[in-house]
Amino acid sequence: MIKIAVMGHGVVGSGTVEVFYKNRESISKKCGGDVDIKYILDLRDFPGLPYSDKFTKSFDDIINDGEVKVVVEVMGGLNPAYDYVKRCLSSGRSVVTSNKELVAAHGAELLRIARDNNVNFLFEASVGGGIPIIRPLSQCLAANSIDEICGILNGTTNFILNKMINDGMSFDDALSLAQQLGYAERNPSADVDGFDTCRKICILASLAFGYHVYPDGIYTEGITNIKLEDVVYAKKLGYAVKLIGYAKRISNDKIFCATYPALIPFSNSLSTVDDVFNAIMVKGDATGDVMFYGKGAGKFPTASAVVADIIDACMHINRRKSIFWEDAKKDYVIPCEEHETAFYVRAKCDLGEASRLFGGVKTSPAENGDVLFITPVMKEKDINAALDASGIEIKAKLRVMEQAV
Amino acid sequence: MIKIAVMGHGVVGSGTVEVFYKNRESISKKCGGDVDIKYILDLRDFPGLPYSDKFTKSFDDIINDGEVKVVVEVMGGLNPAYDYVKRCLSSGRSVVTSNKELVAAHGAELLRIARDNNVNFLFEASVGGGIPIIRPLSQCLAANSIDEICGILNGTTNFILNKMINDGMSFDDALSLAQQLGYAERNPSADVDGFDTCRKICILASLAFGYHVYPDGIYTEGITNIKLEDVVYAKKLGYAVKLIGYAKRISNDKIFCATYPALIPFSNSLSTVDDVFNAIMVKGDATGDVMFYGKGAGKFPTASAVVADIIDACMHINRRKSIFWEDAKKDYVIPCEEHETAFYVRAKCDLGEASRLFGGVKTSPAENGDVLFITPVMKEKDINAALDASGIEIKAKLRVMEQAV
Repeated sequence: MIKIAVMGHGVVGSGTVEVFYKNRESISKKCGGDVDIKYILDLRDFPGLPYSDKFTKSFDDIINDGEVKVVVEVMGGLNPAYDYVKRCLSSGRSVVTSNKELVAAHGAELLRIARDNNVNFLFEASVGGGIPIIRPLSQCLAANSIDEICGILNGTTNFILNKMINDGMSFDDALSLAQQLGYAERNPSADVDGFDTCRKICILASLAFGYHVYPDGIYTEGITNIKLEDVVYAKKLGYAVKLIGYAKRISNDKIFCATYPALIPFSNSLSTVDDVFNAIMVKGDATGDVMFYGKGAGKFPTASAVVADIIDACMHINRRKSIFWEDAKKDYVIPCEEHETAFYVRAKCDLGEASRLFGGVKTSPAENGDVLFITPVMKEKDINAALDASGIEIKAKLRVMEQAV
Repeated sequence: MIKIAVMGHGVVGSGTVEVFYKNRESISKKCGGDVDIKYILDLRDFPGLPYSDKFTKSFDDIINDGEVKVVVEVMGGLNPAYDYVKRCLSSGRSVVTSNKELVAAHGAELLRIARDNNVNFLFEASVGGGIPIIRPLSQCLAANSIDEICGILNGTTNFILNKMINDGMSFDDALSLAQQLGYAERNPSADVDGFDTCRKICILASLAFGYHVYPDGIYTEGITNIKLEDVVYAKKLGYAVKLIGYAKRISNDKIFCATYPALIPFSNSLSTVDDVFNAIMVKGDATGDVMFYGKGAGKFPTASAVVADIIDACMHINRRKSIFWEDAKKDYVIPCEEHETAFYVRAKCDLGEASRLFGGVKTSPAENGDVLFITPVMKEKDINAALDASGIEIKAKLRVMEQAV
């Protein structure tokens, strides 16, 4: 009998317990022996549940119980999750988590502690909710060099942008609607300012390229400054505006990694990702482009990813899975200004003035005497220098993903 | 040191050896020890390769060498692959294969032999080429009940249909182009008659629902009879015609499984799958819809899936992976006539006559006095009976996937 503990009984935690008990028979069969939840840690009371007797308010009950071999952390946030997870791993328990903040902030350290204690640290649910991505990515890796990852990793912002694209709503109205529907929090900053996407692309980049990428070390731009008119102009030019997490191998020693809104051509599958769905495109040198698509959040999709990891942890007691990355390397992530991209620009100037920039670009007239154009693919610093030197008034500027398929 | 043997040095076999040696260092690291190819079985000579010394023309060299622990079967076809694979598994070797014909025809038996000998039988590359699908599906399973699978599983037919949809080419012209480009074989029957898709959906259905589904037990319709005019009419009505493999859980004891061309609404992501790409939609009760997308064929995508399985086999020497299904059950797959679907119909009759069928349907006039309509979702036998009873001349009839998202 393998005993597990679940820390946190919020949305994901309660979903995890529910999915676990619904499938306990097949889970036990997979694990080759009976598996049960011994403790559920939460400070709140949950009377009247079929498993109400399993609740505890004390982490000590879990850490002092030698029977508990696998601990599930679904509390969220860094404190006390970080401390608890460290102590569980150090004491020889495998840990499963859905906590992207924790993995993005301390992944390398926790993976090292897991390795040193011959246990596993698994986090499939931290990116993409119910979409299998961490495991396929890690299993692709040995037979592939990953060159590029581009993902729509946050359903809330994708919903808001889709309402702007398809229904002509302003950002503020679309955000209000998302809040009414329960897709966005009362304080939507983690979503709309790009922090959630940033954490997720950091996790994927760490896994794909082998060194920890910390969220505060990468460029992160949200969607709060996007004007409806630019979304509409982009659509006319053949692009959807999406908030993306993007990571690319530059050389063996350098990567680029960032979060920003970008114009995606309609010919690219990522442009058609609807509403609260997520999609992650991975480019491998042998596989070519592979895309994973599904609900990136929600109680049961996320819980099902947690339970898949629980099974994996129970099947690999005393055996190591190969998920690992090293701690961060200095000057590993190139700064934005060195990154090569094209920009969509809306400027106040005459058509001829705009078209002569960058040695001639195609321009389109827009309302209020504005001009639209798309720059060639160049280093960002060179594009910015050219725009600055021209003296024309730049009213909007968004990156264009021409290269990522 | 783990020694492996590769049987077959065709497109996938040579790609596998190439990807293996390119990544040998990281493969060995993942497997926790050195891994090398000891034999490559092929009747042809391949002089001048860096690994020419490894070739053998005799299967006996492999089966009699106790050092060989993992055998890779990339010969294709049933004979001698079936016999060789059985003997490898029976003698305690794990087997990795890309051979969909073999898995679809003998999967249950080979999985049983693998289990009885405490070895693994892995076949990620048999469906979806480089798209990870077998492993995510099997790992999703314990935490999810799979309800439905709908896939574009054959790149050749998808290319042909896309040329009809987008460029107005006839089937014959599109097939010729596919042959010129090397996407279709000189004898294209396995692709255009649906056999390839049929084998793949049988493998996915066997894995998802737990009992072997044999290719000759399911309805299989190819694309050779599709008229360009129906592709064009479907497009006007808001649908793309795609060849799909489809499997659905009807109850705990019954499934539906079939291969046919179907009209997919443009709102469905499967409708936008381009050219030689594959996409597989899996509906789980907890995850909701998850889609996997990528190149479904080709030397390196397929080889990379084979190599991922080689790594898995080497990491699990003497340990069982949980991929398994039972042999077929009687009356398990319901016949097509019991399946509920809508049909697109092109008929020679007047608009009123058509609209009164099925208690009133929306009709559209087409050329040559034809009428188009889409039936309600009903059992196929009831739709066919109603059409027969009406006495009107049916000129084309294709299933419509309204239900699968």
